[in-house]
Amino acid sequence: MNIKLGINAYGKNAVNLSKIIRHADHHEFRQVSVSVALEGDFDTAHTLGDNSKILPTDTQKNTVYVLAKEHFTSTIEEFGLYLANYFLTNNPQVSKARIEILEHAWQRMTFDGNAYTHAFTGGSTEKRRTIVTQTATGVQVSSGLQDLLLLKTTDSAFENYIKDQYTVLKETADRILATKCEAMWEYTTTGLDFEATYQKIHTSLLHTFAHHKSLSVQQTLYAIGEQILLDNAVVKEVSLIMPNKHHIPFNLEQFGVENKNEIFIATDEPFGYITGTVVRD
Amino acid sequence: MNIKLGINAYGKNAVNLSKIIRHADHHEFRQVSVSVALEGDFDTAHTLGDNSKILPTDTQKNTVYVLAKEHFTSTIEEFGLYLANYFLTNNPQVSKARIEILEHAWQRMTFDGNAYTHAFTGGSTEKRRTIVTQTATGVQVSSGLQDLLLLKTTDSAFENYIKDQYTVLKETADRILATKCEAMWEYTTTGLDFEATYQKIHTSLLHTFAHHKSLSVQQTLYAIGEQILLDNAVVKEVSLIMPNKHHIPFNLEQFGVENKNEIFIATDEPFGYITGTVVRD
Amino acid sequence: MNIKLGINAYGKNAVNLSKIIRHADHHEFRQVSVSVALEGDFDTAHTLGDNSKILPTDTQKNTVYVLAKEHFTSTIEEFGLYLANYFLTNNPQVSKARIEILEHAWQRMTFDGNAYTHAFTGGSTEKRRTIVTQTATGVQVSSGLQDLLLLKTTDSAFENYIKDQYTVLKETADRILATKCEAMWEYTTTGLDFEATYQKIHTSLLHTFAHHKSLSVQQTLYAIGEQILLDNAVVKEVSLIMPNKHHIPFNLEQFGVENKNEIFIATDEPFGYITGTVVRD
Amino acid sequence: MNIKLGINAYGKNAVNLSKIIRHADHHEFRQVSVSVALEGDFDTAHTLGDNSKILPTDTQKNTVYVLAKEHFTSTIEEFGLYLANYFLTNNPQVSKARIEILEHAWQRMTFDGNAYTHAFTGGSTEKRRTIVTQTATGVQVSSGLQDLLLLKTTDSAFENYIKDQYTVLKETADRILATKCEAMWEYTTTGLDFEATYQKIHTSLLHTFAHHKSLSVQQTLYAIGEQILLDNAVVKEVSLIMPNKHHIPFNLEQFGVENKNEIFIATDEPFGYITGTVVRD
Repeated sequence: MNIKLGINAYGKNAVNLSKIIRHADHHEFRQVSVSVALEGDFDTAHTLGDNSKILPTDTQKNTVYVLAKEHFTSTIEEFGLYLANYFLTNNPQVSKARIEILEHAWQRMTFDGNAYTHAFTGGSTEKRRTIVTQTATGVQVSSGLQDLLLLKTTDSAFENYIKDQYTVLKETADRILATKCEAMWEYTTTGLDFEATYQKIHTSLLHTFAHHKSLSVQQTLYAIGEQILLDNAVVKEVSLIMPNKHHIPFNLEQFGVENKNEIFIATDEPFGYITGTVVRD
Repeated sequence: MNIKLGINAYGKNAVNLSKIIRHADHHEFRQVSVSVALEGDFDTAHTLGDNSKILPTDTQKNTVYVLAKEHFTSTIEEFGLYLANYFLTNNPQVSKARIEILEHAWQRMTFDGNAYTHAFTGGSTEKRRTIVTQTATGVQVSSGLQDLLLLKTTDSAFENYIKDQYTVLKETADRILATKCEAMWEYTTTGLDFEATYQKIHTSLLHTFAHHKSLSVQQTLYAIGEQILLDNAVVKEVSLIMPNKHHIPFNLEQFGVENKNEIFIATDEPFGYITGTVVRD
Repeated sequence: MNIKLGINAYGKNAVNLSKIIRHADHHEFRQVSVSVALEGDFDTAHTLGDNSKILPTDTQKNTVYVLAKEHFTSTIEEFGLYLANYFLTNNPQVSKARIEILEHAWQRMTFDGNAYTHAFTGGSTEKRRTIVTQTATGVQVSSGLQDLLLLKTTDSAFENYIKDQYTVLKETADRILATKCEAMWEYTTTGLDFEATYQKIHTSLLHTFAHHKSLSVQQTLYAIGEQILLDNAVVKEVSLIMPNKHHIPFNLEQFGVENKNEIFIATDEPFGYITGTVVRD
Repeated sequence: MNIKLGINAYGKNAVNLSKIIRHADHHEFRQVSVSVALEGDFDTAHTLGDNSKILPTDTQKNTVYVLAKEHFTSTIEEFGLYLANYFLTNNPQVSKARIEILEHAWQRMTFDGNAYTHAFTGGSTEKRRTIVTQTATGVQVSSGLQDLLLLKTTDSAFENYIKDQYTVLKETADRILATKCEAMWEYTTTGLDFEATYQKIHTSLLHTFAHHKSLSVQQTLYAIGEQILLDNAVVKEVSLIMPNKHHIPFNLEQFGVENKNEIFIATDEPFGYITGTVVRD
């Protein structure tokens, strides 16, 4: 019986970096969390403790900070592409470099309709995200978002499902649909305007969620994925995670009061967990 | 030697409630977390296990849901006032009722400049908050917010502080100032437009933060509190918690690169913790 | 109308420090989070931006690390006392120094009944805690713990409470009692064996929780506080926070199955929140 | 261009369930979080909103609670096997049922060396975990743990790694090695004593971590995986995630004090992230 190393990777996670970009009439403030993961010829590091091919994660971290000065000037996708290429081409022992970047959104404060030059508010849970993966044979960019809270107060039903001996859920033609959406889509190319494309897909996601007459989370999920693919030839496939953040009607009737779909218990756990990938045939 | 009960309270925390308010042309969606705390004649509950004066926290929770139907129609302050009064006047054994309400912000989605009727995005960490405290002698409303992320990229200095043998921090005339602000202010009356007052104070807080030439977090904190008091006769005092969320310049110089105040390490811990109350004389 | 500074404080929070103490036959590993808060003559810092009396929080942090080498050798109480005294006596502008220390527990691994010399497991949510407050007139030590999960599967009832129109809770003579306990007690002196006293009180807390025939959380809370005071003359008063982490019987009966107090829904929110201080008369 | 549904799944997550098992002389208390995920013939649910093959996640939740009464009597693996089989065999439209169970550890309190009958402490971050996956062609059990905090104060080095222009990390023959370990191993069979096997592997993991002379996290990870495979013929492969929770020596030297590897900054982020699977050849 022999034992050997299977799939493995290492790198530095959560390299928290902020940058001020000074424009002529205002400051831009960016805050990201970068994670680097490297795969390659690391067998003897595991089996012998031979570190001669190990680029320390501390060095990876420093590299991210240094390269951010010249190369983090536009989207996280462009910065991710630079970093992935840097680590792959400077380290012959590395066969795959994977860069993940989360961006925390900061907005310029607005007073009397005017964006202020250098003050910002932050704090949205929604984070933009990209994963860039480069190997000897090519580079792949996936982009998306996480922790986007979406909710609609009508145009959502759930009916005609299986009933068995453990079913007590009541069918409803009108419920709250709420989710903390995570979406990632794979691009067919790296030669595109990542900012404009992202904004277009983001709007498409929100627009479809809002306007869809939902018969289930699954159907809404599919509709969003389909719309993104229909509108964007540069997107190869879309993966969505849409947990069902239940808002359960509170039983006012037990106290002689009618609940006309007004008062709900907002719950965290348990939650429905609906995931799906929409692809091109 | 005798032993006795000192200060005590009990109630239900985190009553998570959502409500749809249906207007003629759109839906309003509200989500709050209500906490009830009661003080009163509860000595024998502690010393004898006599529950005859205990209103169960489960009943408190139900009460919140039921009363929300008729009485949660405008601000959290108005709902808090109703609840505090309800618990105090219906329970003679209660000498003090304290209601705390946190509101999670949801925004209507906007497409082509138009707010959509029934779809929302959420997810800001900033939460509006009120604490209503009622006793036999009166009622007090404090309002505020928590988890408001604020940041400015210039107009912040920190110089001329004490240097001792453990000082290594460099003085700077231009640094990032960032905080996760918590603010609570005490109103002198319950007869006011809580919504308009809140919005006015909120703007004042942001405006002062943005425009202040900061020599320290302390000075910015005081300036914010002072401005709120100057602008709002109905505010008795303002308490602010402004942790210093440090963005530390990354040492690019060790790699032969200049850091012109561009690239920073965004840190979570440790953090400066600056608190203060600004009062009228 | 005049405006002025009220209560205020500042300092460095979450100074995360670990230490190896090398004994003859084994290593001891300690991990703490230290928070410093200073009050004093800081009015002009707030009103004028005059930092001449400000000891930077960065310096406070360095001070904690440096002093840990010689002075963090036994309990967190002794280290806290040293730090509070250091900051107060070295800074004439400081009128009150407050040191809070949380200790994360690490246990030596045991193999075949023998504690191993230098390997540890951690990960309990329970954290030991102390708050040392020193002013010109004296020093006060409070100690305790937080996030201690306690649960008993019987000897807990809740009956004979108020019933009103919103009551649906059923009385029970046998329920699960679970809490995430926070306890802090005030010592009458600093001249005591903090380690032995803590261990004695800790045992007393657990023993009382386990053996008490509980008629309510309030009664259990009081019994614990009373027992600690009875057993420890050096304790002046005990404050306890005992949220009721509800385990709600799942309604199996709706599926034709009997639930003999066996199967429960473990909930997080909402939760009962019971607090009380037990004092000497 | 056609668009279609790719990989998808749905189910109920975080079904938080507790159970009292009453033995002759003591109570056993168990608390688990169960997540169900189903794959199968759900295309029309996505594309048409046809819910006729959808078993609601609410029903899944009820099923877990009901079946826990008779079938959650020993290990989480046995319960997971029962649940996976139940969902697969009762739902012809389901092609794969995946059950994940996390168990929160509760320990009986001990007084004077005796375990008390019905009182418990909880609160370890370490959680036991299993994933059972059943399809028409068979069933697979993976078991493991997460959030296990491990630390050693010596017998850990990191030297002889690559140095480049961004390297500042100093080589060290003696450092703290700390990790929050996640481990999952795949069993070759379902016919085994899951409890005894788990305990044996758990000990093996700790023993290897403690006794290994570590030249890197990678080498320690591999040593642990190898040892588990060597000792347990029923284990097919082991996957480990061992983030490097850095304890960085504090620079006391800048204050004229020597740091003999005693005082460290305990950091959370960034962190090294080392993952690997050890397999049989």
